[in-house]
Amino acid sequence: MVIIMEKEADVKQIEQIIDKLDKFGFSVHRSTGVDHTVLGVIGDTAKIDPRDLQVLPGVADAHRISAPYKMVSREFKHNDTLIKIKDITIGAEEIVVMAGPCSVESEEQIMTIAEKVSSDGATILRGGAFKPRSSPYSFQGMGEKGLKLLRKAADKYNLLLITEAMDKEQISVVSEYADILQVGARNMQNFTFLKALGQVRIPIFLKRGIAATIEEWLMSAEYILSGGNQNVILCERGIRTFETYTRNTLDLSAIPIVKKLSHLPIVSDPSHGTGLRDKVIPMARASVAAGADGLMVEVHHDPENAKSDGAQSLFPEQFSELMKQIRGIAKVINRKIR
Amino acid sequence: MVIIMEKEADVKQIEQIIDKLDKFGFSVHRSTGVDHTVLGVIGDTAKIDPRDLQVLPGVADAHRISAPYKMVSREFKHNDTLIKIKDITIGAEEIVVMAGPCSVESEEQIMTIAEKVSSDGATILRGGAFKPRSSPYSFQGMGEKGLKLLRKAADKYNLLLITEAMDKEQISVVSEYADILQVGARNMQNFTFLKALGQVRIPIFLKRGIAATIEEWLMSAEYILSGGNQNVILCERGIRTFETYTRNTLDLSAIPIVKKLSHLPIVSDPSHGTGLRDKVIPMARASVAAGADGLMVEVHHDPENAKSDGAQSLFPEQFSELMKQIRGIAKVINRKIR
Amino acid sequence: MVIIMEKEADVKQIEQIIDKLDKFGFSVHRSTGVDHTVLGVIGDTAKIDPRDLQVLPGVADAHRISAPYKMVSREFKHNDTLIKIKDITIGAEEIVVMAGPCSVESEEQIMTIAEKVSSDGATILRGGAFKPRSSPYSFQGMGEKGLKLLRKAADKYNLLLITEAMDKEQISVVSEYADILQVGARNMQNFTFLKALGQVRIPIFLKRGIAATIEEWLMSAEYILSGGNQNVILCERGIRTFETYTRNTLDLSAIPIVKKLSHLPIVSDPSHGTGLRDKVIPMARASVAAGADGLMVEVHHDPENAKSDGAQSLFPEQFSELMKQIRGIAKVINRKIR
Amino acid sequence: MVIIMEKEADVKQIEQIIDKLDKFGFSVHRSTGVDHTVLGVIGDTAKIDPRDLQVLPGVADAHRISAPYKMVSREFKHNDTLIKIKDITIGAEEIVVMAGPCSVESEEQIMTIAEKVSSDGATILRGGAFKPRSSPYSFQGMGEKGLKLLRKAADKYNLLLITEAMDKEQISVVSEYADILQVGARNMQNFTFLKALGQVRIPIFLKRGIAATIEEWLMSAEYILSGGNQNVILCERGIRTFETYTRNTLDLSAIPIVKKLSHLPIVSDPSHGTGLRDKVIPMARASVAAGADGLMVEVHHDPENAKSDGAQSLFPEQFSELMKQIRGIAKVINRKIR
Repeated sequence: MVIIMEKEADVKQIEQIIDKLDKFGFSVHRSTGVDHTVLGVIGDTAKIDPRDLQVLPGVADAHRISAPYKMVSREFKHNDTLIKIKDITIGAEEIVVMAGPCSVESEEQIMTIAEKVSSDGATILRGGAFKPRSSPYSFQGMGEKGLKLLRKAADKYNLLLITEAMDKEQISVVSEYADILQVGARNMQNFTFLKALGQVRIPIFLKRGIAATIEEWLMSAEYILSGGNQNVILCERGIRTFETYTRNTLDLSAIPIVKKLSHLPIVSDPSHGTGLRDKVIPMARASVAAGADGLMVEVHHDPENAKSDGAQSLFPEQFSELMKQIRGIAKVINRKIR
Repeated sequence: MVIIMEKEADVKQIEQIIDKLDKFGFSVHRSTGVDHTVLGVIGDTAKIDPRDLQVLPGVADAHRISAPYKMVSREFKHNDTLIKIKDITIGAEEIVVMAGPCSVESEEQIMTIAEKVSSDGATILRGGAFKPRSSPYSFQGMGEKGLKLLRKAADKYNLLLITEAMDKEQISVVSEYADILQVGARNMQNFTFLKALGQVRIPIFLKRGIAATIEEWLMSAEYILSGGNQNVILCERGIRTFETYTRNTLDLSAIPIVKKLSHLPIVSDPSHGTGLRDKVIPMARASVAAGADGLMVEVHHDPENAKSDGAQSLFPEQFSELMKQIRGIAKVINRKIR
Repeated sequence: MVIIMEKEADVKQIEQIIDKLDKFGFSVHRSTGVDHTVLGVIGDTAKIDPRDLQVLPGVADAHRISAPYKMVSREFKHNDTLIKIKDITIGAEEIVVMAGPCSVESEEQIMTIAEKVSSDGATILRGGAFKPRSSPYSFQGMGEKGLKLLRKAADKYNLLLITEAMDKEQISVVSEYADILQVGARNMQNFTFLKALGQVRIPIFLKRGIAATIEEWLMSAEYILSGGNQNVILCERGIRTFETYTRNTLDLSAIPIVKKLSHLPIVSDPSHGTGLRDKVIPMARASVAAGADGLMVEVHHDPENAKSDGAQSLFPEQFSELMKQIRGIAKVINRKIR
Repeated sequence: MVIIMEKEADVKQIEQIIDKLDKFGFSVHRSTGVDHTVLGVIGDTAKIDPRDLQVLPGVADAHRISAPYKMVSREFKHNDTLIKIKDITIGAEEIVVMAGPCSVESEEQIMTIAEKVSSDGATILRGGAFKPRSSPYSFQGMGEKGLKLLRKAADKYNLLLITEAMDKEQISVVSEYADILQVGARNMQNFTFLKALGQVRIPIFLKRGIAATIEEWLMSAEYILSGGNQNVILCERGIRTFETYTRNTLDLSAIPIVKKLSHLPIVSDPSHGTGLRDKVIPMARASVAAGADGLMVEVHHDPENAKSDGAQSLFPEQFSELMKQIRGIAKVINRKIR
């Protein structure tokens, strides 16, 4: 943390600030310039809110030098985190594809879709049993019965399973069936949930909040890592902008940024990122080109009758086409897709 | 719901849509114009996502006519909801003032502040015992011990108590001590929490999410009302915009809009809305002028040493000044403040 | 400007930066701390983009200490700028009211409206003759013929006249008729226009861009002041947010912020700020309560047949009611309205 | 346009609306449903603002069916617009690369860079002579002298030249030297400029405004096409979001959306889109993968001493690497790069 004093700041004001920081256990390095005195604060400044310093008398400005997160940063851990589950590794040379319906609706539905996506090269089945819906009147998911169907389909077609838990109470039941536990965008700052996820060992798939900055997202991951669970996969799924043609705006620049700031793997979700079936293929290609470690894509054998998110689910033949195209792109950047 | 067919839509496409809607239990009124066929969908369309219709072959556009919420709407209940707790009524002629520190820190602190705000005319004590913090390394609140101190201070100075619960597990302990249960902005779409809040009877203070539209906010209130709890107070606390000078942008136009769309009372929080102590007084005045039913204001007897949100907490003498100014404004619009 | 070097920055990197800044004519104050070397840059740093320093090898961060604007800042000129035009002073105790139609449409229309708003206490007539429209197919205004009608109406009812010029070519014709020249939100960063406005002496009414930060807005004012024209009035007219119920979100916190950062007067436009007639009165009251130096309000004697912006124009009787209400609020904060 | 009447709307209200629309020259198709009467408005509704209808008594809602733009739409012109300049065609199978410095600074600089980018396969030289800068104290460009140097460099290395004009007065001088005239993001809604651009024949490169929706952007293009100039190239260059790590957020989904809605070619500018040199290569790859017809990239032989935008300019060797990578991606999607 660097604190820049106002030109007119007097000695008493400067000393008050040094005393205050000293009381909190920080060392302060004082440097007297021609115009401004600058104070360098040494210690674990992640605990201080710069705004609390900015309002003190005599202070012109206060800035963090180091990021507020630690364990998620590449400075803390230099090498990429590889998340190994059975025979799949997320974050390595192979780009993983997670595919499946928005919600599990019936045994027939999930079996049909799982067979399809597996045969095209997806290695992880996605599908929701507990559904966060903005309306209390919308389909809320099949619950544990859905989890059982998802597991059955994943096992039959040799897929890993990723599915969402909506709060800390659902962690244990979801962990019983799934290989990866998904945290939805609206839960990115559900802090009691994040703390509980630090206590378990199942890999966590942490979606970016719809209006979250990358720093806030990494801070949420920090909650999980600092709690003890090192297995976090980040997922860019679109942020809210003024554009209304798409459901969200997929922020692909988050991919190279996260790769630089953090050692955690990052996956792109062009289905939620666009909300429109015919935009999923180009944005999936672009995600791979931008360096994503994986894709999450919604696929439905009958999207027009899907109980949720039909508008953004690919038809099976579109998914085959997508797989073909991204394999070509992966090769160009020295990665591969099964 | 109104569905506008494309100019080129053929009879088969139109009939497929009618069949589909019929299957879901809707009646359809068909009107054939010169250019476009328009289908009026009759029934409980809150269950349908217009996007699912927009992607069907032959559909040019689909729009909801009625709002997706029901029980929170003024159409559903014409008269203002009045929330009576002991001798206080929220939503009536009197504008209520909720004041206190961001977090309870000690007995001495909360007693000092409660005495002060009570003597100036506040009728509800605010203060957090469970604190949602974006960093796992920040002060996380005193927990139940803090709730006890808050209750003690409220009782001693004849104040009601409002405090936050962070998830459904904390509902019972917070309800034991508080008169009003606060739901933070980041929890506005924590749906399992909202469902649980519908099952209890304590009044709920529902903050607007930082990037939420008013419709989404009302949908979250709908979760609580449709669950059975009619006592919801809405709180505008600032939305995220590109402006960085303030912490958030207090959207005061939300006040007259909510008053028109809904029967629920609405309170303004200029402390979180601006994040800056010296902007709180003008924005509190503006909130009252815009028609708010109440104010929530952070006050601390020693803001420079507050454990959280010191930068936006008023000094005690500023709070006295604020109360004086808003009393004058309330009178102009035929309301009053104690 | 303060430059914070990385922990690992070596002497050569530090010296390269000092050399570079030296070459541009800056003095550098170097301070060696335990972890980081901090460089204080002395001189006119408004010319440097901090991003250009942030990317240099060895640099951890670079921040401006002083604002990038000078002449618009309160540090530069301590006292409020008062803009005197005939018998009206903008920025003084009296809050000025600018009222009239969106566009001048005919002599009868503008005379009717001017008479009305004048009799209620407005002192400045507003109305557009050159209209910036997002569609080339919308009504584009009456042009110079409209300016003549506006002047005639203003003179007859003893009002000042404010109207918009859309580019530098229109400055001279607008200056011939108007007392104040309005720059629209979409032109806030039309830099060749801003430069030309610095060369004239007519007071400029500079609307905030729909996605502009306050700093960018003040930088645009700086263009005008640094060109030689000190008579700038700022106008908050709403910013774009995710809320769709209103046309824009009126950012009233901009009022106390601008009053602190700058000596220039600030006016609020609740008509464009909300886009909805029935939200104009509460937001006009709130603007006055927040400390605005003036209001700009659209009024039409027959809004349902207005050629533009009818939806946000007040009926004459609503304008009378608004004037009554804001007079009461002005008194509470020791200001007055004619 | 479809107008949905309120349930309680009476016959008189319906007839008033029909009369009003009739007076403006529209035919109205009336359809009486069980709950709501729906009016279909037939004629050139691009002239009507739906908000003006929404506020009329008895109206529940009013929506446009057709887009407000015409000539830019794919409905109006089915085939892709190809813009042929000398031996280059923009919008065809070949993806064009526009490269060069932010600003022309000297003959040596522009010659060095032009030689470099030409040898790597760029076919169009970019560089600014008139620079829109948010600060009046920043480098404002070399003016016409710069245009001469740009032309000289382009001719020597067999490149086309694209450069910016800042207002209608600069059109003629820029047209004298350049092959393509660039309109900056801040000028996207400078309507007098857009009208003047409709009168000339030089191809226009129209950047998206920083907070513009795709519809607003296409409406700005409509100004130029409806004025008579069919040669418009759209450029996605990043929109403002809450993310501060990047300068802007490059909205790559705009590429497939524009390709669907319009026949005009679309180019991506990852340099302004990210503002950070090391993010340009992955986002350039992603742009090609998403279907862009071209790239605009800033390259400087000595970015650390560039007079503007050094932080986002590629080093020459980075540009060579970028060209190599995007050639591979182009092949996968059946396009090519020289």
